[in-house]
Amino acid sequence: MFVHHVFFWLKNPDSSDERAKLLDGIKQLKAVETVKTFHVGVPATTNRPVIERGYSFSLLLIFDNLEDQDTYQVHPIHKNFVEECSPLWSKVVIYDAVDT
Amino acid sequence: MFVHHVFFWLKNPDSSDERAKLLDGIKQLKAVETVKTFHVGVPATTNRPVIERGYSFSLLLIFDNLEDQDTYQVHPIHKNFVEECSPLWSKVVIYDAVDT
Repeated sequence: MFVHHVFFWLKNPDSSDERAKLLDGIKQLKAVETVKTFHVGVPATTNRPVIERGYSFSLLLIFDNLEDQDTYQVHPIHKNFVEECSPLWSKVVIYDAVDT
Repeated sequence: MFVHHVFFWLKNPDSSDERAKLLDGIKQLKAVETVKTFHVGVPATTNRPVIERGYSFSLLLIFDNLEDQDTYQVHPIHKNFVEECSPLWSKVVIYDAVDT
C-alpha cells in the first residue's frame, strides 16, 4: 500500500474562483486508473497545537504500490493538473508513506 | 469521511527499541471500534523537494465522521497510547481533513 497525501496552500485562499479551479482540478485526478482510494478534503474543525490547519485542500490518494504511484506521476491527467493548477498554489507539502 | 493523518518524529530515530515500542503502540490503535481504515507507514523512497521525509512513522486513520474521531480521541486505547508513547517522540504533526 502506498499512501500519497498532498496539502495545497493557495496563493489567494479567499478567492472563490481560484478555490473552485483548484478543487475542480484535484477532482480530475480520481480518473487515473491506478488510484485505488481518493479523497479531497478541507481542514476539519479540530483545533489543537499539533494540528496543521493552514492549507486550503488536502488530497489523499492510495495506490497498491510504488509502481502505481509512479504511473500516476507521469499520467497525462496528472501532468495537465500540475500545468493548469500549479500557478494557483504558494506551497505544496507531500507525505508518501509505505508499509513498515 | 474524516481523514486523520499523523506523523511522528522520534527523539531517537536510530534506536531500534524505541522504534519497535512506538510501532507496537501505533498498531494497538487499530482496535478502536470507530476506526474504519488503518495504515501505519514509513517514508517511501520517493524524494522530491516538496516531499517531507523526516518522520519515523505515519498513521492514517479514516473515520466515518467527526463524532467517531472524537470517540477515538478519548478512547482508553488511545489515551493509553499517548501516555506510554509520547515520551518517545520529539514532534507530532496532524492533518485532519473532511469532505469539501
